Amino acid sequence: MNNFILKNENAIYYEVNFSCDNVIFLNLGNEKFFITDARYTIEAKEYSKGCVVIESSNLIETAKDILKRNKVKELIFDPFDFSYATFSILKNNLETKLKEEANFSKIKRLIKTEQEIKLLKKAANLGREGFENFAKFIAKKGFEKTEKELFFEAFKNMTQKAKYDASFDPIIAINKNAAKPHALPTNKKLKGNDLLLVDAGIKYKRYCSDRTCTSFVDFENFSFKREQKFRNKKHQKIYDIVLSAQQKAINGARSGMKASNIDKIARDYIEKSGYGKYFVHSTGHGVGLDIHEYPNINNKNDLIIEDNMVFTIEPGIYLSDEFGVRIEDTIVMQNGRGIIL
Amino acid sequence: MNNFILKNENAIYYEVNFSCDNVIFLNLGNEKFFITDARYTIEAKEYSKGCVVIESSNLIETAKDILKRNKVKELIFDPFDFSYATFSILKNNLETKLKEEANFSKIKRLIKTEQEIKLLKKAANLGREGFENFAKFIAKKGFEKTEKELFFEAFKNMTQKAKYDASFDPIIAINKNAAKPHALPTNKKLKGNDLLLVDAGIKYKRYCSDRTCTSFVDFENFSFKREQKFRNKKHQKIYDIVLSAQQKAINGARSGMKASNIDKIARDYIEKSGYGKYFVHSTGHGVGLDIHEYPNINNKNDLIIEDNMVFTIEPGIYLSDEFGVRIEDTIVMQNGRGIIL
Repeated sequence: MNNFILKNENAIYYEVNFSCDNVIFLNLGNEKFFITDARYTIEAKEYSKGCVVIESSNLIETAKDILKRNKVKELIFDPFDFSYATFSILKNNLETKLKEEANFSKIKRLIKTEQEIKLLKKAANLGREGFENFAKFIAKKGFEKTEKELFFEAFKNMTQKAKYDASFDPIIAINKNAAKPHALPTNKKLKGNDLLLVDAGIKYKRYCSDRTCTSFVDFENFSFKREQKFRNKKHQKIYDIVLSAQQKAINGARSGMKASNIDKIARDYIEKSGYGKYFVHSTGHGVGLDIHEYPNINNKNDLIIEDNMVFTIEPGIYLSDEFGVRIEDTIVMQNGRGIIL
Repeated sequence: MNNFILKNENAIYYEVNFSCDNVIFLNLGNEKFFITDARYTIEAKEYSKGCVVIESSNLIETAKDILKRNKVKELIFDPFDFSYATFSILKNNLETKLKEEANFSKIKRLIKTEQEIKLLKKAANLGREGFENFAKFIAKKGFEKTEKELFFEAFKNMTQKAKYDASFDPIIAINKNAAKPHALPTNKKLKGNDLLLVDAGIKYKRYCSDRTCTSFVDFENFSFKREQKFRNKKHQKIYDIVLSAQQKAINGARSGMKASNIDKIARDYIEKSGYGKYFVHSTGHGVGLDIHEYPNINNKNDLIIEDNMVFTIEPGIYLSDEFGVRIEDTIVMQNGRGIIL
């Protein structure tokens, strides 16, 4: 893996601690080249580490010149990182052999460093703070606010008025709408005794947080805590199943286990409870610079889980036209076990 | 252009009036296929027009099956619309010949329909309303707010608390920071007599607005109007040059003219004023479903401008370490002339 090319912003950030939205990165043996346009060169020189910053108005042609000058024989690229058009321009008249290696940066980033775990922990803490402040808003002013209005308040509280970036658009879903895993906010209004699902996260120094809470709506005593008392019995029953499935998966996760076995813990419990076919997605996904990275925690991935991997555990049950429940935390594997970040 | 494939969300929306973030679209003669996963099929069937909605857990394989079943000989694709990886999967074992045609959807969308112009007009009006409300905020509470805080308030006012999507992250830049065409918000605080640049837009039914204002900061009388009185003489001088360049380009734009000639009107005026080398970008870009689409208004594009094209006119002068001025409106060509939307 000595010679490779990258375009993806986060993949490049991982290599040199700086990135921007118009850059080509080359790693040739021990030399690293950060090729960008005039808008970014000053900051790139100031903040990047261990690379040469090159200003160019045609990034791909500059990269090709460097490859030619260095007589590079083979260069690894990620076929998901290049459009067919950009790949064609890169390949045209190039003597270097281009070698496909899908997702090689994500594979490299599977095991987090101590520093990365610190940043992810900080992101998780800021995320929880955001949830707490959003809960206070709901208790005080949530009555009859629409999902769209709540979406804005979630964004405001999670990001501390855009001080931090959101990891993704918050999901705010009341009752029936929570039966869609990726619900978009509507004009439906929040009322007492409702079920409210909130999935949200922020970024701290580019590292993401990710958490989902499903709560009973009691304006006198609203919280996103794991203990929830629903007035509706079916809400409570499904909530308890999902919470048990989630806690079993967190408590059962071990380094040395296959990712698919963590999925199996949550899935088996939900199946045994009779709701297997309503758990329509995988149990989790890696979290880091990207909100979705490796490892995937699903029923097909036989990757061995190791210490310092970071991923979500987020089982859910979705009953169409009724409601849905999802409970999600992001965990880090340490000393062989999963710890909520 | 009877047989083509699309992946891009906006390009597909243009074809069938509905789209989502996981879809492959096939146009085969008079038949249109919208291939998506289970999350989106219900809405796709309800809102899409003139196409068959097909549910699939492997979109590309389903598309290939349809191509085989219909014995399609040749299929047009946009090389910018497919990653090299997705293209490879599509091509593998496929008898249909894949024919590159770069940006064919953007070319198709160059001339807007009456309905599209209505939506763009509505977006522009909502955008202006957002600017007006943001101006009121600044007058009342803007003193010593940081660019980051103002960024949040711009987002809040432009989107009406997320009722509408933002076309892009607002640019908020004070004095020196305005010298960067794509400045990111910092902790710099707004004070009286400052120069403030704001570039922002919203989406109405997926159609974008885009506008930039540069203003003198007087908390008693703050506005984003085109008439601005700066206390600093150099601010005023540069502002007047940019405003004249912009108005000359808007007033001089004619259907039948080359795009490069519109660029030339603004560029020549700024050059004659002695600041040519500080106008570091093109004069404008098309606006529609994408915030950047065709036509590009730059010094190389010899495309003939026609009625019902919609694009920005946004010259700027950027004096590093001093300040920058950009003034932008989105115009539509009608009856041979440019009209501010």
